[in-house]
Amino acid sequence: MPYDSANSLRKHMKTEPAGPESPTSATGGLAAARLDPAASVPLYRQIYDALRNDILSGALARGQRLVATRVMAEELSVSRNTVLEAVEQLTAEGYLTAHVGSGTFVAEDLPEELLRVGALSELSKPGEAARLSARGQAFGQWASSTAGDRNHPFQVGRPAVDRFPWRAWSRLVSRRSREMSPDWLDYADSAGYPPLRRALARYLHASRGLDCSPEQIVIVRGSQQGLDLTARIVLDEGDAVWMEDPGYPAARVAFAAAGAREIPVPVDAEGIDVARGRDLAPEARLAYVTPSHQYPLGVTMSLGRRLELLRWARETDAWIIEDDYDSEYRFAGRPLASLAGLDRGRHVIYLGTLSKVLFPALRLGYVVVPPEHVDAFVGARYACDRHTPVLEQAVVADFFDEGHFGRHVRRMRTLYARRQSRLSRAIVEHLSDEIDLQHSDTGLHDVGWLRRRDDDLATSRLAASVGVSVAALSTFCNQARLRPALLFGYAGFPGDELAAAVERLKRALEGP
Amino acid sequence: MPYDSANSLRKHMKTEPAGPESPTSATGGLAAARLDPAASVPLYRQIYDALRNDILSGALARGQRLVATRVMAEELSVSRNTVLEAVEQLTAEGYLTAHVGSGTFVAEDLPEELLRVGALSELSKPGEAARLSARGQAFGQWASSTAGDRNHPFQVGRPAVDRFPWRAWSRLVSRRSREMSPDWLDYADSAGYPPLRRALARYLHASRGLDCSPEQIVIVRGSQQGLDLTARIVLDEGDAVWMEDPGYPAARVAFAAAGAREIPVPVDAEGIDVARGRDLAPEARLAYVTPSHQYPLGVTMSLGRRLELLRWARETDAWIIEDDYDSEYRFAGRPLASLAGLDRGRHVIYLGTLSKVLFPALRLGYVVVPPEHVDAFVGARYACDRHTPVLEQAVVADFFDEGHFGRHVRRMRTLYARRQSRLSRAIVEHLSDEIDLQHSDTGLHDVGWLRRRDDDLATSRLAASVGVSVAALSTFCNQARLRPALLFGYAGFPGDELAAAVERLKRALEGP
Repeated sequence: MPYDSANSLRKHMKTEPAGPESPTSATGGLAAARLDPAASVPLYRQIYDALRNDILSGALARGQRLVATRVMAEELSVSRNTVLEAVEQLTAEGYLTAHVGSGTFVAEDLPEELLRVGALSELSKPGEAARLSARGQAFGQWASSTAGDRNHPFQVGRPAVDRFPWRAWSRLVSRRSREMSPDWLDYADSAGYPPLRRALARYLHASRGLDCSPEQIVIVRGSQQGLDLTARIVLDEGDAVWMEDPGYPAARVAFAAAGAREIPVPVDAEGIDVARGRDLAPEARLAYVTPSHQYPLGVTMSLGRRLELLRWARETDAWIIEDDYDSEYRFAGRPLASLAGLDRGRHVIYLGTLSKVLFPALRLGYVVVPPEHVDAFVGARYACDRHTPVLEQAVVADFFDEGHFGRHVRRMRTLYARRQSRLSRAIVEHLSDEIDLQHSDTGLHDVGWLRRRDDDLATSRLAASVGVSVAALSTFCNQARLRPALLFGYAGFPGDELAAAVERLKRALEGP
Repeated sequence: MPYDSANSLRKHMKTEPAGPESPTSATGGLAAARLDPAASVPLYRQIYDALRNDILSGALARGQRLVATRVMAEELSVSRNTVLEAVEQLTAEGYLTAHVGSGTFVAEDLPEELLRVGALSELSKPGEAARLSARGQAFGQWASSTAGDRNHPFQVGRPAVDRFPWRAWSRLVSRRSREMSPDWLDYADSAGYPPLRRALARYLHASRGLDCSPEQIVIVRGSQQGLDLTARIVLDEGDAVWMEDPGYPAARVAFAAAGAREIPVPVDAEGIDVARGRDLAPEARLAYVTPSHQYPLGVTMSLGRRLELLRWARETDAWIIEDDYDSEYRFAGRPLASLAGLDRGRHVIYLGTLSKVLFPALRLGYVVVPPEHVDAFVGARYACDRHTPVLEQAVVADFFDEGHFGRHVRRMRTLYARRQSRLSRAIVEHLSDEIDLQHSDTGLHDVGWLRRRDDDLATSRLAASVGVSVAALSTFCNQARLRPALLFGYAGFPGDELAAAVERLKRALEGP
């Protein structure tokens, strides 16, 4: 703002006070108002700001009369309409009062106590922001998680955005956006767009062994919202949650945000150790698991563990979240049936995402919930953000119905298997003395165990210095003390990039 | 499912047990498997389901050997590949074990205790869903709020979706979707798309008297998410919140969902009664207000009250949410400056929405927060749903930059003024003995005070029976006992529809 409050528009006030309460007289240099016609702020707004500042700071006193707008305009070299606009706005907002025939005055009816010297100017001074709540402060610590370097191999969780059929997608978007009608613009169903819910029910039945009705499917804005909503719906503050250790950090964040008490439960070659969970916190209200492809270790939960987990949930009336984030990409054979499909007791909330199958920026996912609890999820959507926009949902439904979805998944499955094997060959060739890559037959990443280094975090930082993004396994651990390892996401990067990154990593590890 | 579990695939088992623990022998009618080639479920899946059911129910015992797939295929009259597919899937999932040369067996390594008679079959029986948390149960009660009859006059909060320039919009959508690049498909900034944040900062400065940097603006998924995030960030469970009474029901829901204690504070002709709030709960952490156009009463908060409220917040280190949901539509003169623009103490969180200016299904809004607390909002977005999809944000930024936004607001302002006056004339002509319409110079709705009826809820129901949607003022009240009134949203309906609805309402009120 070009306005200098020390040399304000006081000059524009008549010197004779309009009432006994007006202690100050208006003086000051007109030129000092320094209106700046070139500023992006309109002139009327500059005048408005200057006058309002003076009223709030007490420089213009209650009841004091302004000089005529015509005079003010001449002295400021602006049109009278510009001054009028500022004065009318201040009048509409209650700072000024117009008396027909006698001019415009600083309002008399500002609260008495606020007009004591200092009270108003106190308000107009910059101050500290109010403090946040305890949970609000906790949110701040996660802000840095949102940044992150996503463009370098081997970023975990990145699908092949370079191979997404965006031309087909964009055609569908254009077609749907041309069809927009008033009905499409209005508030929509909090549970989701019905044709998409139907398409997903068919898909889940055929590919995940999950029999559910479209009414049990609630569309959410990505799996993170599914986690957040589920946490708030099944947990009260202080409730215990079994969390896979190592496990998915963003799930831990969602549970912490809901005030839950995290109980880290070890993961072995069969998945989460249910017996250990029972020892640590038999009273837990929820277990978070990734049965198809444990995140990040990549193991598949054994049938025995699945049955044990279901039995625990049933016996203790607890919940299970099955986060099925990448099971579409099982390279050998069909995807394994979901845990939810085994659950006749309705203790599993199935969480699916389209971020990995389509693309992350879409922010669409879904939860499958027991019929009697659909209302809780719909009500929670109402409380949290009303509903998901319709356009993307309709485009995804078309993407399913016109066969793009199935085709894309099949292509990506082949592509990812190829990228995985390219990564594997490069590591065998260049880094076999450093890294033992554990092959997983599902998903978008593999675990590379460090053969002769103890500190995976330091190794990860060293890699970052040469543009290689390998997350340290230890950063996914809570209590678990595992052998040091790095995560290699291979899905989101062409084979040549993967190979080049392996060579860069090799040189970095060899040192200067 | 056409499969009848009482007549299962047991027949397909050899009768001699493969080990000492296999107590049951496999018998049953083959035809009874009743595979249904016409079903939407693939045949392999029907066989898979049947076999899995038998294993889980104990009908097929641990260690028992299956008949050869060739034999099974002949008896079921399906191709051997179909049977193989089912068997391989069950093998991959751990239900069956293949021993080279000797055939396929029900897995031996299912947990011992689960195989006791009854334990597994118990798991496979339908049961009750697990119970929700206390707050989860509360969510359920809001599910019905999401439905609502939105197509009838005088639905409140509906903008003129019939006059939205959707051709221009759809052109922008098509253009942006054609430009999609891999970068656009990946995870994006939790705070929002930078060009949109810049466009909003300019807009807020010029039209709302609010000086903020683009970095202070966090894009959210509609004002409801702004409320939900703010509630979680500034409130802990049990904290008191001043809520305008009568007030915006969805804000009450967001505060309740955050575990806050609602303190209803009366609203008079100057807005929220700050002195009364101080009496009722001086320790409140947050005040929720709609200063430009009180929802639902339509009054504008006086300057005095604004200053009082700011002073209270500053003195007690409390927060204010300024929900500025429809201030663009001030018919006389420019929109009044925002409360946030007056706040040098950084105690106001400004909440803006694009649902009213553009269209509700878009689900885009924004919060303006003190610079030092941007991280908390960004972290909360990460915990709740990562980020807003980029496509719509980019289209809205274009809509601003190419002048559509300003043009649309100006057109709608004129249109709404016309619709308002059409409503007003119709009521004077037909319903003047029943309804006293209180004219507001801002927004999308007016309050119609009932002249001779006591029960606004009953009147609202009577109106609904003739397709007229007039919300009863009493449903917005908590402790407040106001004169009975109905809300007339006029923005979303053409003049003729408004007039016809007034006539329908007149006939309904006259009775048969």
